[in-house]
This record gives sequence, structure tokens and C-alpha cells, in this order.
Amino acid sequence: MMSSLPKRVTIVEVGPRDGLQNEAAFVSTAQKIGLIERLADAGLSFIEATSFVHPKAVPQLADADAVIGELETRPGLTISALVPNERGLDRALAAGVKRIALFTAASETFTRRNIRMSIADSLAVFRAVSQRAVEAGVSVRAYLSTCFVCPFEGDISARRVAELTEQLLELGADEIALSDTIGAAAPRDVFAVGEAILNRVSAPRLALHLHDTYGTALSNVLAGLQMGITTYDAAVAGLGGCPFAPGAAGNLATEDLVYFLDRMGITTEVDLARVLDAADAAASLVGSPPRSRQWSRVCGKAQGSSRDET
Amino acid sequence: MMSSLPKRVTIVEVGPRDGLQNEAAFVSTAQKIGLIERLADAGLSFIEATSFVHPKAVPQLADADAVIGELETRPGLTISALVPNERGLDRALAAGVKRIALFTAASETFTRRNIRMSIADSLAVFRAVSQRAVEAGVSVRAYLSTCFVCPFEGDISARRVAELTEQLLELGADEIALSDTIGAAAPRDVFAVGEAILNRVSAPRLALHLHDTYGTALSNVLAGLQMGITTYDAAVAGLGGCPFAPGAAGNLATEDLVYFLDRMGITTEVDLARVLDAADAAASLVGSPPRSRQWSRVCGKAQGSSRDET
Repeated sequence: MMSSLPKRVTIVEVGPRDGLQNEAAFVSTAQKIGLIERLADAGLSFIEATSFVHPKAVPQLADADAVIGELETRPGLTISALVPNERGLDRALAAGVKRIALFTAASETFTRRNIRMSIADSLAVFRAVSQRAVEAGVSVRAYLSTCFVCPFEGDISARRVAELTEQLLELGADEIALSDTIGAAAPRDVFAVGEAILNRVSAPRLALHLHDTYGTALSNVLAGLQMGITTYDAAVAGLGGCPFAPGAAGNLATEDLVYFLDRMGITTEVDLARVLDAADAAASLVGSPPRSRQWSRVCGKAQGSSRDET
Repeated sequence: MMSSLPKRVTIVEVGPRDGLQNEAAFVSTAQKIGLIERLADAGLSFIEATSFVHPKAVPQLADADAVIGELETRPGLTISALVPNERGLDRALAAGVKRIALFTAASETFTRRNIRMSIADSLAVFRAVSQRAVEAGVSVRAYLSTCFVCPFEGDISARRVAELTEQLLELGADEIALSDTIGAAAPRDVFAVGEAILNRVSAPRLALHLHDTYGTALSNVLAGLQMGITTYDAAVAGLGGCPFAPGAAGNLATEDLVYFLDRMGITTEVDLARVLDAADAAASLVGSPPRSRQWSRVCGKAQGSSRDET
């Protein structure tokens, strides 16, 4: 069961973007840059730093231009930014972004509710932005949301996900982040989608973007590893979700993913202790403790033994 | 990846025993019986109800005799109780228990610290208790603690776990609960132990007893399913751990396991909504909210969507 697993995995840190965009707290540009630098210091070599959405839609990331402009480049560190449309691309290019992330979803209803357009319309936007980006020498990652379960439509067709994955690659993306947006998927879903895609697309073109709503995220990582997928998104401190909804779930926490991969003997080049330091820093920025299992156990200094403990 | 998974899984509910023994709150006999009945109503057909340890060691379960004596039998429901020694067996037999659970561990240091004897001595106790139980028509389950990682010794030898598993079966146990006592294991550990055991022992003789300290429990369930293991322990509301140690982790929550198995298309006969009701009840008994992902999401009525959610 273990012999065929990848020996090395890439983690894409999305906390500064997918995390902070969903947190109520105001985080200053300098604090954001400090967090990103801590994450890079921990060995994370792909970091999604911000989003060039309209500042009115996501005021938390209204300083995207400054974040990108002021971040120092490092050898081996790839910084990306989310771009929703051509206006966002203009800003991203002006700020000097070298890699952008575009998005659509596999659920028609979710797409309409999330970005107020149809999937077809979102693909038209994707095509226009992607083409201009590639012409400008900027690489493109794609998020495909609700690949497994949609909060409105329920189960999503694996064949539909496979078709969209192929289309997004044809439109210029070099990596498709198959996203379990509400964190409801179990490995059966991951296997089904993976099997539908992997006879058309090679595993290095895929990433898994998991939320940990029901605690299934690491089991979905195992399923992904067993299918040869080597790129996983995560957010330090489990940032994300909606702070106004009690119990809302964030992204799979980077520290939980790193613990898991370390224990699996899979190389990430990421240092767990330093990620925990970054989680502390992120938590103090957003004003709530890290929402990871790893943090609450290790930093809570928990776990003794008691008589008859099984 | 999915085609070879078991179609049906048995859940052994250990909350009333392994959960309540680690909770500070005093729960009355009537409340314990009420909780067990709710769990049976939810479709759980194997419930570990209590422990016949010395009342001074675990005062929370000092009423084991009364719990077993007053529980009404139901067709299809198997009630078990933990028994640490011959004195405990005397009490268990007098109370009318039909199935007992004995225990030892795969780590010498853990065994000495947990039950103040060597593994060899604990096996001698096991032999004496098991023999008398079987002669009295009482069936025996065995917990083998620290099968993967020991808090004192670190990694545990899979070969040692396999040897002990065989020995416990020879001593009269019909099922060995391979226990990740501190919840530190990842699927690599489960695969290693499973592979060492399964060329000597058939999968129906094994159970996995997982704690969810680092969020790896469901990934370990997936590993177990892939090796053909069909019995999994869980505790309603994620009861367990030590309430005095901040962040201490409980057992894998029954409701998280049921959600996972439901979503995997694997039959359990357990009703998730009713388990969540039982989790509410259990939580009010111990005075803290359920420590499961499922409860906090579903009963917290969380999760909306926001613009650009991936």
C-alpha cells in the first residue's frame, strides 16, 4: 500500500489568500508580508500571497498591489495571486506577479452564487485572462471549486470535473487545484474524480485543495497520494472559513498536513516547528487560536497517560 | 482503489467506557444507562458500557456493577465491559457480563507506566482472566495499546505487535483492537502493522482503536479498510483524553466515523442524526461540547459560501 506512494510532495500555502480573505480581522500590509516571510522561512516554496479581487468584495485583501510590490523575491520561492478578471490581471501585472490563480467551479449553482456568472461565462473570462497572462510570461494555476460535493447541488459528476479539468489545461493553466470547497468529500469521491481525470491528464497537472470541515481532509490526501497526486494546498493555522458562522471550517491546516506527510515518510522540505511558529503568528493576526489539530496538541502541551488507557 | 473495500463495517462504541473514564464529570448510573440506550437506539450494536477497574483508580466508573445490572438486554446488542484482573472478572461475572475486554500494550514502558507491570506479567493476568471468562461462556476482546507509537518509546516494532496479536488470540481473545493510544499514527504505520499481522491472522480478528489527536484517524480508517479490517472503535462526541490537559485528544468520534463511512458508501446500520443526538446528550453529561468535526459543523449550522471561495 505504501510502496507506490510519491516520495516527495509540494505544499501550496494558501493561508495568506484563501485564509485571510475569509477572516474578519484587519491585517496590515506589513503583517501580511511578515506572515508570508515566516511561511517561506519554514520552507514553503509556493505561497499564494493575495487576491486581486475588487477591494469592495474582499476588503481584507485590498492591499494586494502593495503586498506583491513589497514582498522581496527569493530564489526557489514562487508567489502567486488570485485574479478574478481582466481588471484584476491588470493590477497583478502592474504589481509584478509571476504566477496567477484563476478559478471556476464544477457546480453551475455554486458558480452563479459565488461569482454571479455561469460556468460557461467564467470559462470565457478564464480564457481571456489566461491568454493575456501567458503572453506576458505569467504562469497560470486554476482552481476548480466544488469538484466533489456542492452545497446546493449535492454530488458532482466526476466526468464533468474531468471535462472541465481538460478545458482549463487547454486554456493555459499548468495545474488544476481540484477543490473540496465545503470539505465534505471522502476518499471515494477523490478516487472517483481522480480515476475520471487520470486517463486524460497526468497526475503532475493536478493538485488537491481540501477543507477539513468533517475531518476527512487527510484521508483525502492519502487517496490523492495513492493516485500519484503530489501537490496539496493547505493554509497555516487552518485559516479560512467564515468567522461569522460558528463551526465554519477552514482549509486543511498546513501543520496538520506537514505532520501527516512527515509521519508518512514523504519529503516536503517544510519544517513543522517553524510552521507552528507561523501558525502562532497567523493566529495572533486574526485574533483566534490556530484551528489545527497539531497546534492544539503540541502547543497545548497535552496528552499524558492514565491507567487503563487504550 | 474502492472496489476492494469492505461493504460493511462494525463500529464498537467505547464512549461510555474509554470516554467517561477520562472525563472529570460525575455521571450518574441512570445517566450512563440513558446514554447507552441512546447509542443503541442509534443502531450501535457493540457498546463497551463500563470498566470493572478498582473504583479508586477510576471513580467515574465505580458503578460498573449497577450499570451492567440495570441495562436491559436487547436482541442484537452486545454489551462489553473492561476487566483489568481476576477481581474485576469476579465483579463482571456477578453482574452478568457476556463479553469482556482485556488489555495489554506493545510498549514495555507504556505498560509499566499505565498498569504498573511488565508486558509478560500483564499476559499472565490476561491468561488467567481469559481462561476463566471463556470457561464461564464469556467472550473476550483484547486491547493492544500503543501499537504504532509510544509516548515514551517512540516507534513500535510492527513485528512485535504481530507477535503479541497472535499471543492474545491464543490466550482466548476473539478480536484484537490494535490501538493508536496517543493518536500519533499515520497510514504508513497502519499498513506496516497490518502487513506484519495479516500473514498470520485474518482481518476479521482485528479492530482498529484510533484516537484523533492529530487529525489522522480517518486516514488510518481508510488504510484499515484497504487491508480488509472491518471493525473500528469510536466514542460518541469524541469523548476521552484527559480533561485536565489542554488539547488532550479523545477517541475518534463516532459521528465523524459514521459520516465518513456513509460518504464512502459503506454500511454501518448506524444513524448519523441519532448519533448526533447522543453526542449532544453525552456532551451535556460531561459539561463540554462534543469534540467532533461533525457536531461542530452540522449542529453549529455553519458553512455558507463567499465570493471567490475555492
